[in-house]
Amino acid sequence: MPPEALMKEKLHAYLEAYNRGDLDAVLALYHEQATLEDPYGTPARQGKAQIEAFYRQAMASSAQLTLSAPIRGSHGNAAAMAFEAVLDGQLRVQVIDVMTFDEQGLITSMRAYFGPSDIHSCAPGSHR
Amino acid sequence: MPPEALMKEKLHAYLEAYNRGDLDAVLALYHEQATLEDPYGTPARQGKAQIEAFYRQAMASSAQLTLSAPIRGSHGNAAAMAFEAVLDGQLRVQVIDVMTFDEQGLITSMRAYFGPSDIHSCAPGSHR
Repeated sequence: MPPEALMKEKLHAYLEAYNRGDLDAVLALYHEQATLEDPYGTPARQGKAQIEAFYRQAMASSAQLTLSAPIRGSHGNAAAMAFEAVLDGQLRVQVIDVMTFDEQGLITSMRAYFGPSDIHSCAPGSHR
Repeated sequence: MPPEALMKEKLHAYLEAYNRGDLDAVLALYHEQATLEDPYGTPARQGKAQIEAFYRQAMASSAQLTLSAPIRGSHGNAAAMAFEAVLDGQLRVQVIDVMTFDEQGLITSMRAYFGPSDIHSCAPGSHR
């Protein structure tokens, strides 16, 4: 089982890499055969090529992710985090991600929980 | 697929029932054959009898649950929430729960993500 501290460290690294638009650094956190369901409820993507295609598109919106609360670990191979994504300064999306990890701390699965009701317009003039 | 609003409503009802110590109301939210992993990483409990035994013990600590951020829905059959549980005014546990639902809005599975590093002592004299 990956240590809890390692899983949390990887999620912090994920947020930082995402926020600086570093696609390679995000992909480096994933296992070669990982699955990704973002949003949960849509077909899973599997493997680095599909995951890269997903992030290439997702990161085009220059979304900025901010934790809503401290990252949670687990008594198993998973960690979870609630955050807000602001897209192009226009949309605010409230999300919870759950990731599982292998022994080395690579992400083996990712599920993003948010629905249509979790997407809000940013107040005019606000870039939060 | 259960409507997003219904799933969120059920999670609000869950928090309210839990906080007033209403075991029956909590159990009524669950499907007869639901599974429960609390915490995630420990063996799953299955079915109302095992779930009742779990909550009977859990609720003995008079834990109070407070949302850390708005409940998230999904594009599928799940909703998720980040909250803090304060146990006996002594311990503060930072948790993310993910529940799946059937068409009628009954909980079919529950996973609670928190690890040893998410359990903190409350400040002396503080009952928050």
